[in-house]
Amino acid sequence: MQFNKLLDNVSTYEAGKPIELVVREYGIDPKEVVKLASNENPYGTSPKVVAKIEELAKNMYLYPDDSMFELKDALAKKYNLDSSNIIIGSGSDQILEFCIHAKCKSNSNVIMAKTTFAMYEIYAKHVGANILKTQSSQHNLEEFSKLYKENGADVIFLCIPNNPLGECLNKDEVYEFLKTIDQDTLVVVDGAYQEYAAFKDEKKRICPKDLINTFPNCVYLGTFSKAYALGGMRVGYGLAKENIISTFYKIRAPFNITTLSLAAAIEALKDEKFVNDCIEKNFIEMKRYEEYVTNKNFEYIPSYTNFITIKLGDKFISKVVAQKLLELGMIVRDLTGYGLNAIRVTIGTNEQNTKLFKLLDKVLEELK
Amino acid sequence: MQFNKLLDNVSTYEAGKPIELVVREYGIDPKEVVKLASNENPYGTSPKVVAKIEELAKNMYLYPDDSMFELKDALAKKYNLDSSNIIIGSGSDQILEFCIHAKCKSNSNVIMAKTTFAMYEIYAKHVGANILKTQSSQHNLEEFSKLYKENGADVIFLCIPNNPLGECLNKDEVYEFLKTIDQDTLVVVDGAYQEYAAFKDEKKRICPKDLINTFPNCVYLGTFSKAYALGGMRVGYGLAKENIISTFYKIRAPFNITTLSLAAAIEALKDEKFVNDCIEKNFIEMKRYEEYVTNKNFEYIPSYTNFITIKLGDKFISKVVAQKLLELGMIVRDLTGYGLNAIRVTIGTNEQNTKLFKLLDKVLEELK
Repeated sequence: MQFNKLLDNVSTYEAGKPIELVVREYGIDPKEVVKLASNENPYGTSPKVVAKIEELAKNMYLYPDDSMFELKDALAKKYNLDSSNIIIGSGSDQILEFCIHAKCKSNSNVIMAKTTFAMYEIYAKHVGANILKTQSSQHNLEEFSKLYKENGADVIFLCIPNNPLGECLNKDEVYEFLKTIDQDTLVVVDGAYQEYAAFKDEKKRICPKDLINTFPNCVYLGTFSKAYALGGMRVGYGLAKENIISTFYKIRAPFNITTLSLAAAIEALKDEKFVNDCIEKNFIEMKRYEEYVTNKNFEYIPSYTNFITIKLGDKFISKVVAQKLLELGMIVRDLTGYGLNAIRVTIGTNEQNTKLFKLLDKVLEELK
Repeated sequence: MQFNKLLDNVSTYEAGKPIELVVREYGIDPKEVVKLASNENPYGTSPKVVAKIEELAKNMYLYPDDSMFELKDALAKKYNLDSSNIIIGSGSDQILEFCIHAKCKSNSNVIMAKTTFAMYEIYAKHVGANILKTQSSQHNLEEFSKLYKENGADVIFLCIPNNPLGECLNKDEVYEFLKTIDQDTLVVVDGAYQEYAAFKDEKKRICPKDLINTFPNCVYLGTFSKAYALGGMRVGYGLAKENIISTFYKIRAPFNITTLSLAAAIEALKDEKFVNDCIEKNFIEMKRYEEYVTNKNFEYIPSYTNFITIKLGDKFISKVVAQKLLELGMIVRDLTGYGLNAIRVTIGTNEQNTKLFKLLDKVLEELK
């Protein structure tokens, strides 16, 4: 059977290995496996969210409220926007897909940083778009501008802060850049880790309402998978002007969010204290990583997220290090596929991080 | 901002109104609202599923197992297939989307019955495909054949049994039809209500393994939203030869199913007794509808599903009847949008059906 030719060039996303897989493949006790590979919130799910899920479990025979009235209302209040500025996705991933399908066709230009969230490229390839990447791995707006001036673009992706590297553009420099972009180019400001960046440095904070009012060609993406500790529930959102949102609605499949995911997200928004406490602990623990890495004479990229990218220099191969850690039940992300000899480690709990340091010591010793 | 021109002709799906909406709009006590509009299993969620959801709720900070190893393994055993023949979707809806994107481009031909599941047309329009519909509302394979011979097609949708009308083709006539279809045409056999049809009449039963082995250009779709009572969890699946499934995987976004949805589906598969009991009760209750409709001198379409389509003749307007019922807290589906002066009613519990009869009596009396 012949398939759509555009799919010939599509590769699939390589997700962080789940704990179940390590248990199956290496026969390690699930309690001993630590996953610091997918930037989950290591402090677990808010007890209020757990209680709500338990309360609603018996209603799962009914379809979800596809109007998503309550969650959109809660987000509208949080961001001081109208519900018509909001669309909910199965993770903010799904909003990325809406952005591409709303604006792009075969041979559209899409601009992104050399090393950034892998799904930007994958979704763009689904429709046969041209991928234009900056030369630098980290976001460099001069390079973005040059690519844009030379080629134009239907969509530009800015990951603020950037996954998988952790660096973060300042709000002011983003605004200066946006002033130079045509109103017909859709600019995606992916704020999956904004809660972390804004906590660490006020200069990084993007206010979605101000962003979309100042630049009506922008869409802001947020997620419940990181700071809000709902990675397993798949809820994200897009915030934009109504003309953009209503176009996304044409692409959205009905019932794209489960009932429990909607309820969990609503409840998570009510428990901001839990989120803030988690973020505070995150940066206390990150200091330990920075010290550890410095002591080992490795380099790290200063991070505005809940993960840290550790460059392994020329004495160790990141792929080997990550594999050795995996066999010991410690899951981290090797960045070889992103063109870097580095590993990306999610900042875990105090205990998890201590274990990471111990196991990494062991692996580095073995490989010396 | 200019958007993809293909979207100009796309309409959005009109979902059955959720109970919350009726509560908000008409101020009716939620306990008094009965929803017989979305063909949910009215007997609630299996207690075993509820227990599993409660057990796992605390793990929602972790991403799902994107390999979906366990659910695919359970389905592989159920259908005597290999995991490589299976893909899981956010409802079988999402598999429909994969089918369209895998095979179609602008101006591809897609064949379907005149009155069938609305998403076939909506997804086909996303890529600018031509929609070719039979003249008859119900599935008529001679008309399908004629359209196919005259125009060819990249995708053919067969809804067996058909939603929203309830009729069901026999397996033998489907096979005769499939023999005449080119191997490069993807035929989608949507079995969302197959559990009901196969229970009522063995001649309707489609065996997915036999189907895809005999016709490698077929994909069989199943869902957990109907007989398996998990409408709120959004889990469906596609079964096909490996070349088709691996192409679908290129289109699938990572983590398209939540952790709790995966676990609920696995648990639901273990509780087949619950499913069978529900289906048995469904057809006992359906007899009451057939008698009620006959007594009113209306007509119904003999149904192989968990709903019944009631044609209201020329004395009542279905849109008005459905609206009057809504205002009394009884949600049914008006089929005016499908070109029929009819309502589609989900077969509820004994008590719900008694209430439907009472309220419909009242509404018909008022409108007489």
